[in-house]
Amino acid sequence: MVLFTFRYSLFTFVQPLLPPQIQKVIEEFRKLPGIGHKSAERLTFFLLRSSKAEPENFSRVLKELKEGVKYCEQCQMVSVAQLCPICADQSRDHSMILVTEEPLDVVAFEKSGYKGVYHVLHGVLSPIDGMGPEQLKLKELTERCKSGDIAELIIATDPDVEGEATATYLRRELKKYVSTITRLAHGLPSGAEIEFADQVTLREAVAGRREL
Amino acid sequence: MVLFTFRYSLFTFVQPLLPPQIQKVIEEFRKLPGIGHKSAERLTFFLLRSSKAEPENFSRVLKELKEGVKYCEQCQMVSVAQLCPICADQSRDHSMILVTEEPLDVVAFEKSGYKGVYHVLHGVLSPIDGMGPEQLKLKELTERCKSGDIAELIIATDPDVEGEATATYLRRELKKYVSTITRLAHGLPSGAEIEFADQVTLREAVAGRREL
Repeated sequence: MVLFTFRYSLFTFVQPLLPPQIQKVIEEFRKLPGIGHKSAERLTFFLLRSSKAEPENFSRVLKELKEGVKYCEQCQMVSVAQLCPICADQSRDHSMILVTEEPLDVVAFEKSGYKGVYHVLHGVLSPIDGMGPEQLKLKELTERCKSGDIAELIIATDPDVEGEATATYLRRELKKYVSTITRLAHGLPSGAEIEFADQVTLREAVAGRREL
Repeated sequence: MVLFTFRYSLFTFVQPLLPPQIQKVIEEFRKLPGIGHKSAERLTFFLLRSSKAEPENFSRVLKELKEGVKYCEQCQMVSVAQLCPICADQSRDHSMILVTEEPLDVVAFEKSGYKGVYHVLHGVLSPIDGMGPEQLKLKELTERCKSGDIAELIIATDPDVEGEATATYLRRELKKYVSTITRLAHGLPSGAEIEFADQVTLREAVAGRREL
Protein backbone atom coordinates (compact mmCIF):
# COMPACT_ATOMS: atom_id res chain seq x y z
CA MET A 1 0.00 0.00 0.00
CA VAL A 2 2.85 2.33 0.87
CA LEU A 3 4.59 1.28 -2.34
CA PHE A 4 1.44 1.92 -4.35
CA THR A 5 0.99 5.39 -2.89
CA PHE A 6 4.61 6.20 -3.59
CA ARG A 7 4.44 5.05 -7.20
CA TYR A 8 1.15 6.83 -7.67
CA SER A 9 2.54 10.09 -6.39
CA LEU A 10 5.59 9.75 -8.63
CA PHE A 11 3.36 9.04 -11.57
CA THR A 12 1.05 11.98 -11.07
CA PHE A 13 3.83 14.35 -10.15
CA VAL A 14 6.86 13.61 -12.29
CA GLN A 15 5.29 12.18 -15.43
CA PRO A 16 2.98 14.99 -16.63
CA LEU A 17 5.87 17.45 -16.48
CA LEU A 18 7.02 16.51 -19.97
CA PRO A 19 4.52 16.61 -22.84
CA PRO A 20 3.19 13.11 -23.66
CA GLN A 21 4.69 13.07 -27.15
CA ILE A 22 8.15 13.59 -25.64
CA GLN A 23 7.50 11.00 -22.94
CA LYS A 24 6.51 8.43 -25.58
CA VAL A 25 9.76 8.84 -27.52
CA ILE A 26 11.74 8.52 -24.26
CA GLU A 27 9.87 5.27 -23.57
CA GLU A 28 10.66 3.88 -27.04
CA PHE A 29 14.36 4.69 -26.64
CA ARG A 30 14.33 2.95 -23.27
CA LYS A 31 13.21 -0.29 -24.91
CA LEU A 32 16.49 -0.45 -26.81
CA PRO A 33 19.37 -2.44 -25.31
CA GLY A 34 21.93 -0.42 -23.35
CA ILE A 35 19.86 2.76 -23.22
CA GLY A 36 18.82 3.82 -19.72
CA HIS A 37 16.40 6.53 -18.66
CA LYS A 38 18.90 9.40 -18.69
CA SER A 39 20.25 8.46 -22.14
CA ALA A 40 16.72 8.09 -23.48
CA GLU A 41 15.87 11.60 -22.25
CA ARG A 42 19.07 13.03 -23.71
CA LEU A 43 18.53 11.39 -27.12
CA THR A 44 14.91 12.57 -27.24
CA PHE A 45 15.82 16.17 -26.48
CA PHE A 46 18.61 16.00 -29.04
CA LEU A 47 16.04 15.02 -31.68
CA LEU A 48 13.66 17.69 -30.43
CA ARG A 49 16.23 20.43 -30.82
CA SER A 50 17.70 19.34 -34.14
CA SER A 51 16.21 20.77 -37.34
CA LYS A 52 12.59 19.79 -38.12
CA ALA A 53 13.61 17.18 -40.68
CA GLU A 54 15.51 14.90 -38.37
CA PRO A 55 12.92 13.10 -36.23
CA GLU A 56 10.67 12.93 -39.26
CA ASN A 57 13.39 11.39 -41.38
CA PHE A 58 14.21 8.96 -38.58
CA SER A 59 10.50 8.15 -38.34
CA ARG A 60 10.28 7.46 -42.07
CA VAL A 61 13.29 5.14 -42.23
CA LEU A 62 12.09 3.24 -39.16
CA LYS A 63 8.71 2.71 -40.77
CA GLU A 64 10.42 1.26 -43.84
CA LEU A 65 12.92 -0.80 -41.85
CA LYS A 66 11.23 -4.15 -42.30
CA GLU A 67 9.67 -3.46 -45.68
CA GLY A 68 11.10 -5.77 -48.30
CA VAL A 69 13.74 -7.19 -46.01
CA LYS A 70 13.91 -10.93 -46.43
CA TYR A 71 16.51 -13.63 -45.90
CA CYS A 72 18.79 -14.81 -48.70
CA GLU A 73 17.34 -18.20 -49.66
CA GLN A 74 20.81 -19.72 -49.57
CA CYS A 75 22.79 -18.21 -46.65
CA GLN A 76 19.89 -16.62 -44.68
CA MET A 77 21.63 -13.23 -44.57
CA VAL A 78 19.26 -10.24 -44.59
CA SER A 79 18.77 -9.30 -48.20
CA VAL A 80 16.49 -7.45 -50.58
CA ALA A 81 16.94 -10.00 -53.38
CA GLN A 82 16.22 -13.72 -53.20
CA LEU A 83 19.96 -14.29 -53.34
CA CYS A 84 22.22 -11.92 -51.36
CA PRO A 85 25.14 -10.20 -53.18
CA ILE A 86 27.61 -12.63 -51.62
CA CYS A 87 25.79 -15.80 -52.69
CA ALA A 88 25.19 -14.29 -56.13
CA ASP A 89 28.91 -13.55 -56.58
CA GLN A 90 30.35 -16.41 -58.65
CA SER A 91 33.93 -15.23 -58.09
CA ARG A 92 33.74 -16.31 -54.44
CA ASP A 93 34.60 -19.77 -53.12
CA HIS A 94 31.22 -21.47 -52.77
CA SER A 95 32.75 -24.66 -51.37
CA MET A 96 33.66 -22.95 -48.10
CA ILE A 97 30.84 -21.96 -45.71
CA LEU A 98 31.47 -19.80 -42.66
CA VAL A 99 28.65 -20.25 -40.13
CA THR A 100 27.80 -17.16 -38.06
CA GLU A 101 25.29 -16.38 -35.32
CA GLU A 102 24.05 -13.04 -36.66
CA PRO A 103 23.95 -10.99 -39.89
CA LEU A 104 26.30 -8.41 -38.33
CA ASP A 105 28.96 -11.11 -37.97
CA VAL A 106 28.90 -11.43 -41.77
CA VAL A 107 29.52 -7.68 -42.07
CA ALA A 108 32.54 -8.05 -39.75
CA PHE A 109 33.99 -10.99 -41.71
CA GLU A 110 33.48 -9.17 -45.01
CA LYS A 111 35.70 -6.37 -43.72
CA SER A 112 38.34 -8.97 -42.82
CA GLY A 113 38.64 -10.05 -46.46
CA TYR A 114 37.14 -13.57 -46.24
CA LYS A 115 36.33 -14.86 -49.74
CA GLY A 116 34.13 -17.88 -49.13
CA VAL A 117 30.38 -17.81 -48.51
CA TYR A 118 28.35 -17.71 -45.29
CA HIS A 119 25.45 -19.22 -43.42
CA VAL A 120 23.65 -17.17 -40.77
CA LEU A 121 22.04 -19.21 -37.97
CA HIS A 122 20.12 -16.24 -36.51
CA GLY A 123 20.91 -17.24 -32.95
CA VAL A 124 22.70 -19.88 -30.88
CA LEU A 125 21.53 -22.89 -28.93
CA SER A 126 20.42 -21.55 -25.57
CA PRO A 127 17.77 -23.64 -23.80
CA ILE A 128 17.30 -20.97 -21.14
CA ASP A 129 16.16 -18.48 -23.82
CA GLY A 130 14.04 -21.13 -25.58
CA MET A 131 16.50 -21.41 -28.47
CA GLY A 132 16.68 -25.01 -29.67
CA PRO A 133 17.84 -26.38 -33.05
CA GLU A 134 14.35 -25.69 -34.45
CA GLN A 135 14.69 -21.95 -33.80
CA LEU A 136 17.95 -21.70 -35.77
CA LYS A 137 18.38 -21.72 -39.57
CA LEU A 138 19.84 -25.20 -39.20
CA LYS A 139 17.63 -27.15 -41.60
CA GLU A 140 18.79 -24.84 -44.39
CA LEU A 141 22.45 -25.40 -43.42
CA THR A 142 21.96 -29.16 -43.33
CA GLU A 143 20.44 -29.03 -46.83
CA ARG A 144 23.43 -27.07 -48.12
CA CYS A 145 25.85 -29.55 -46.56
CA LYS A 146 23.91 -32.52 -47.96
CA SER A 147 24.32 -31.13 -51.48
CA GLY A 148 27.89 -32.48 -51.24
CA ASP A 149 29.78 -29.61 -52.81
CA ILE A 150 31.02 -28.24 -49.48
CA ALA A 151 34.74 -28.72 -48.86
CA GLU A 152 34.91 -26.92 -45.53
CA LEU A 153 32.54 -25.64 -42.88
CA ILE A 154 34.05 -22.95 -40.63
CA ILE A 155 32.07 -22.60 -37.43
CA ALA A 156 32.31 -18.96 -36.33
CA THR A 157 29.93 -18.79 -33.38
CA ASP A 158 31.05 -16.57 -30.49
CA PRO A 159 33.69 -18.00 -28.13
CA ASP A 160 31.26 -18.20 -25.18
CA VAL A 161 29.27 -21.03 -23.56
CA GLU A 162 26.36 -20.94 -26.03
CA GLY A 163 28.66 -20.47 -29.00
CA GLU A 164 30.81 -23.44 -28.02
CA ALA A 165 27.76 -25.63 -27.38
CA THR A 166 26.37 -24.70 -30.79
CA ALA A 167 29.72 -25.46 -32.46
CA THR A 168 29.83 -28.90 -30.83
CA TYR A 169 26.25 -29.60 -31.88
CA LEU A 170 26.91 -28.51 -35.47
CA ARG A 171 29.99 -30.70 -35.72
CA ARG A 172 28.09 -33.75 -34.47
CA GLU A 173 25.13 -33.15 -36.79
CA LEU A 174 27.02 -32.23 -39.94
CA LYS A 175 30.23 -34.27 -39.90
CA LYS A 176 28.50 -37.02 -41.92
CA TYR A 177 28.01 -34.58 -44.82
CA VAL A 178 31.18 -32.45 -44.72
CA SER A 179 34.68 -33.88 -44.43
CA THR A 180 36.32 -30.79 -42.95
CA ILE A 181 34.62 -28.88 -40.13
CA THR A 182 36.77 -26.22 -38.48
CA ARG A 183 36.39 -23.74 -35.64
CA LEU A 184 37.88 -20.25 -35.55
CA ALA A 185 41.22 -20.02 -33.75
CA HIS A 186 41.07 -18.93 -30.13
CA GLY A 187 43.98 -16.91 -28.79
CA LEU A 188 45.23 -13.40 -28.26
CA PRO A 189 43.46 -10.70 -30.27
CA SER A 190 45.66 -8.51 -32.45
CA GLY A 191 47.13 -5.61 -30.47
CA ALA A 192 46.34 -7.16 -27.07
CA GLU A 193 48.60 -6.83 -24.07
CA ILE A 194 49.40 -10.21 -22.56
CA GLU A 195 49.48 -8.64 -19.08
CA PHE A 196 45.75 -7.87 -19.34
CA ALA A 197 44.61 -11.04 -21.10
CA ASP A 198 42.29 -13.30 -19.12
CA GLN A 199 43.40 -16.78 -18.08
CA VAL A 200 41.11 -18.69 -20.45
CA THR A 201 42.45 -16.74 -23.44
CA LEU A 202 46.04 -17.33 -22.34
CA ARG A 203 45.42 -21.04 -21.81
CA GLU A 204 43.93 -21.27 -25.32
CA ALA A 205 46.75 -19.22 -26.81
CA VAL A 206 49.28 -21.69 -25.36
CA ALA A 207 47.25 -24.76 -26.37
CA GLY A 208 46.88 -23.46 -29.92
CA ARG A 209 50.51 -22.37 -30.36
CA ARG A 210 52.04 -22.77 -33.81
CA GLU A 211 55.58 -23.39 -35.00
CA LEU A 212 57.34 -20.25 -36.23
CA MET B 1 43.43 9.80 -55.38
CA VAL B 2 44.51 6.87 -53.27
CA LEU B 3 42.12 7.97 -50.58
CA PHE B 4 39.31 8.26 -53.08
CA THR B 5 39.92 4.80 -54.47
CA PHE B 6 40.01 3.38 -50.96
CA ARG B 7 36.75 5.03 -49.94
CA TYR B 8 35.17 4.01 -53.21
CA SER B 9 36.14 0.40 -52.77
CA LEU B 10 34.82 0.41 -49.21
CA PHE B 11 31.61 1.96 -50.38
CA THR B 12 30.96 -0.48 -53.19
CA PHE B 13 32.09 -3.46 -51.18
CA VAL B 14 30.90 -3.08 -47.62
CA GLN B 15 27.82 -0.90 -48.03
CA PRO B 16 25.59 -2.94 -50.38
CA LEU B 17 25.95 -5.95 -48.10
CA LEU B 18 23.10 -4.74 -45.89
CA PRO B 19 19.75 -3.84 -47.48
CA PRO B 20 19.39 -0.05 -47.94
CA GLN B 21 16.45 0.25 -45.54
CA ILE B 22 18.61 -1.26 -42.78
CA GLN B 23 21.57 0.94 -43.71
CA LYS B 24 19.38 4.06 -43.48
CA VAL B 25 18.24 3.28 -39.94
CA ILE B 26 21.87 2.64 -38.92
CA GLU B 27 22.77 6.07 -40.34
CA GLU B 28 19.97 7.79 -38.41
CA PHE B 29 21.07 6.16 -35.16
CA ARG B 30 24.64 7.30 -35.84
CA LYS B 31 23.50 10.93 -35.92
CA LEU B 32 22.54 10.68 -32.24
CA PRO B 33 25.09 11.74 -29.61
CA GLY B 34 27.13 8.95 -28.08
CA ILE B 35 26.06 6.29 -30.58
CA GLY B 36 28.88 4.91 -32.72
CA HIS B 37 28.72 2.67 -35.75
CA LYS B 38 28.69 -0.62 -33.83
CA SER B 39 25.97 0.55 -31.44
CA ALA B 40 23.92 1.87 -34.36
CA GLU B 41 24.13 -1.53 -36.06
CA ARG B 42 23.22 -3.35 -32.86
CA LEU B 43 20.20 -1.11 -32.15
CA THR B 44 18.97 -1.44 -35.73
CA PHE B 45 19.15 -5.22 -35.68
CA PHE B 46 17.45 -5.24 -32.29
CA LEU B 47 14.53 -3.34 -33.83
CA LEU B 48 14.57 -5.60 -36.85
CA ARG B 49 14.24 -8.72 -34.76
CA SER B 50 11.69 -7.45 -32.30
CA SER B 51 8.01 -8.02 -33.07
CA LYS B 52 6.60 -6.18 -36.10
CA ALA B 53 4.96 -3.49 -33.98
CA GLU B 54 8.09 -2.05 -32.44
CA PRO B 55 9.87 -0.09 -35.19
CA GLU B 56 6.48 1.05 -36.44
CA ASN B 57 5.47 2.29 -33.02
CA PHE B 58 8.83 4.00 -32.63
CA SER B 59 8.33 5.54 -36.08
CA ARG B 60 4.90 6.85 -35.13
CA VAL B 61 5.97 8.48 -31.86
CA LEU B 62 8.99 10.07 -33.54
CA LYS B 63 6.76 11.56 -36.20
CA GLU B 64 4.58 13.10 -33.50
CA LEU B 65 7.51 14.23 -31.36
CA LYS B 66 7.40 17.89 -32.32
CA GLU B 67 3.66 18.09 -32.95
CA GLY B 68 2.04 20.45 -30.50
CA VAL B 69 5.17 20.89 -28.41
CA LYS B 70 5.63 24.54 -27.57
CA TYR B 71 7.35 26.47 -24.82
CA CYS B 72 5.49 27.62 -21.70
CA GLU B 73 4.97 31.35 -22.26
CA GLN B 74 6.23 32.05 -18.76
CA CYS B 75 9.13 29.71 -17.94
CA GLN B 76 9.98 28.46 -21.48
CA MET B 77 9.75 24.81 -20.39
CA VAL B 78 8.52 22.41 -23.11
CA SER B 79 4.77 22.21 -22.72
CA VAL B 80 1.57 21.29 -24.52
CA ALA B 81 -0.42 24.11 -22.92
CA GLN B 82 0.37 27.83 -23.04
CA LEU B 83 1.29 27.62 -19.38
CA CYS B 84 3.19 24.53 -18.17
CA PRO B 85 1.78 22.55 -15.19
CA ILE B 86 4.36 24.13 -12.88
CA CYS B 87 3.60 27.74 -13.80
CA ALA B 88 -0.12 26.98 -13.68
CA ASP B 89 0.17 25.57 -10.14
CA GLN B 90 -0.84 28.35 -7.76
CA SER B 91 0.30 26.37 -4.71
CA ARG B 92 3.95 26.89 -5.70
CA ASP B 93 6.14 29.80 -4.70
CA HIS B 94 6.05 32.09 -7.73
CA SER B 95 8.44 34.61 -6.17
CA MET B 96 11.38 32.23 -6.50
CA ILE B 97 12.74 31.46 -9.96
CA LEU B 98 15.32 28.76 -10.56
CA VAL B 99 17.15 29.36 -13.85
CA THR B 100 18.24 26.21 -15.72
CA GLU B 101 20.07 25.54 -18.97
CA GLU B 102 17.79 22.82 -20.31
CA PRO B 103 14.26 21.39 -19.85
CA LEU B 104 15.76 18.16 -18.47
CA ASP B 105 17.30 20.14 -15.62
CA VAL B 106 13.76 21.08 -14.57
CA VAL B 107 12.83 17.39 -14.51
CA ALA B 108 15.82 16.75 -12.22
CA PHE B 109 14.94 19.61 -9.83
CA GLU B 110 11.31 18.49 -9.70
CA LYS B 111 12.47 15.11 -8.41
CA SER B 112 14.49 16.92 -5.72
CA GLY B 113 11.35 18.47 -4.26
CA TYR B 114 11.97 22.15 -5.17
CA LYS B 115 8.72 24.13 -4.80
CA GLY B 116 9.42 27.43 -6.57
CA VAL B 117 9.09 28.03 -10.31
CA TYR B 118 11.64 27.84 -13.14
CA HIS B 119 13.05 29.59 -16.15
CA VAL B 120 14.69 27.55 -18.92
CA LEU B 121 17.40 29.39 -20.88
CA HIS B 122 17.67 26.69 -23.59
CA GLY B 123 21.45 26.92 -23.65
CA VAL B 124 24.39 28.74 -22.08
CA LEU B 125 26.62 31.56 -23.26
CA SER B 126 29.25 29.97 -25.46
CA PRO B 127 30.74 32.26 -28.10
CA ILE B 128 32.59 29.32 -29.70
CA ASP B 129 29.25 27.63 -30.43
CA GLY B 130 27.65 30.89 -31.55
CA MET B 131 25.54 31.12 -28.39
CA GLY B 132 25.23 34.75 -27.31
CA PRO B 133 22.59 36.38 -25.04
CA GLU B 134 20.29 36.69 -28.08
CA GLN B 135 20.19 32.90 -28.54
CA LEU B 136 19.03 32.30 -24.96
CA LYS B 137 15.55 32.87 -23.51
CA LEU B 138 16.98 35.85 -21.68
CA LYS B 139 14.60 38.58 -22.79
CA GLU B 140 11.73 36.58 -21.30
CA LEU B 141 13.64 36.19 -18.02
CA THR B 142 14.42 39.92 -17.88
CA GLU B 143 10.72 40.68 -18.38
CA ARG B 144 9.79 38.38 -15.50
CA CYS B 145 12.38 40.00 -13.23
CA LYS B 146 11.22 43.50 -14.21
CA SER B 147 7.69 42.64 -13.08
CA GLY B 148 9.03 43.17 -9.56
CA ASP B 149 7.41 40.23 -7.79
CA ILE B 150 10.55 38.12 -7.76
CA ALA B 151 12.15 37.71 -4.33
CA GLU B 152 14.96 35.36 -5.36
CA LEU B 153 16.61 34.20 -8.55
CA ILE B 154 18.54 30.93 -8.16
CA ILE B 155 21.02 30.46 -10.98
CA ALA B 156 21.34 26.74 -11.63
CA THR B 157 23.53 26.57 -14.72
CA ASP B 158 26.06 23.71 -14.82
CA PRO B 159 29.23 24.16 -12.73
CA ASP B 160 31.49 24.37 -15.81
CA VAL B 161 33.15 27.26 -17.69
CA GLU B 162 30.11 28.19 -19.79
CA GLY B 163 27.74 27.74 -16.86
CA GLU B 164 29.83 30.00 -14.61
CA ALA B 165 30.17 32.65 -17.33
CA THR B 166 26.42 32.59 -17.86
CA ALA B 167 25.79 32.89 -14.11
CA THR B 168 28.10 35.93 -13.90
CA TYR B 169 26.41 37.52 -16.90
CA LEU B 170 22.92 36.93 -15.46
CA ARG B 171 23.88 38.44 -12.11
CA ARG B 172 25.28 41.56 -13.78
CA GLU B 173 22.23 42.01 -16.05
CA LEU B 174 19.51 41.24 -13.53
CA LYS B 175 20.74 42.55 -10.17
CA LYS B 176 18.99 45.86 -10.81
CA TYR B 177 15.62 44.08 -10.88
CA VAL B 178 16.02 41.36 -8.24
CA SER B 179 17.44 41.93 -4.77
CA THR B 180 18.57 38.36 -4.12
CA ILE B 181 20.41 36.41 -6.81
CA THR B 182 21.93 33.13 -5.64
CA ARG B 183 23.99 30.36 -7.18
CA LEU B 184 23.68 26.66 -6.37
CA ALA B 185 26.14 25.43 -3.73
CA HIS B 186 29.31 23.82 -5.03
CA GLY B 187 30.82 21.04 -2.98
CA LEU B 188 30.88 17.30 -2.52
CA PRO B 189 27.96 15.42 -4.08
CA SER B 190 25.96 13.20 -1.75
CA GLY B 191 27.55 9.78 -1.38
CA ALA B 192 30.90 10.86 -2.81
CA GLU B 193 34.22 9.55 -1.55
CA ILE B 194 36.58 12.38 -0.66
CA GLU B 195 39.53 10.26 -1.79
CA PHE B 196 38.25 10.36 -5.38
CA ALA B 197 36.99 13.96 -5.46
CA ASP B 198 38.84 16.31 -7.85
CA GLN B 199 40.85 19.25 -6.49
CA VAL B 200 38.45 21.97 -7.72
CA THR B 201 35.51 20.30 -5.95
CA LEU B 202 37.54 19.91 -2.75
CA ARG B 203 38.69 23.54 -2.87
CA GLU B 204 35.08 24.67 -3.26
CA ALA B 205 33.90 22.32 -0.51
CA VAL B 206 36.41 23.91 1.88
CA ALA B 207 35.63 27.47 0.73
CA GLY B 208 31.89 26.90 1.12
CA ARG B 209 32.12 25.13 4.51
CA ARG B 210 29.29 25.76 6.99
CA GLU B 211 29.15 25.78 10.78
CA LEU B 212 27.71 22.61 12.27
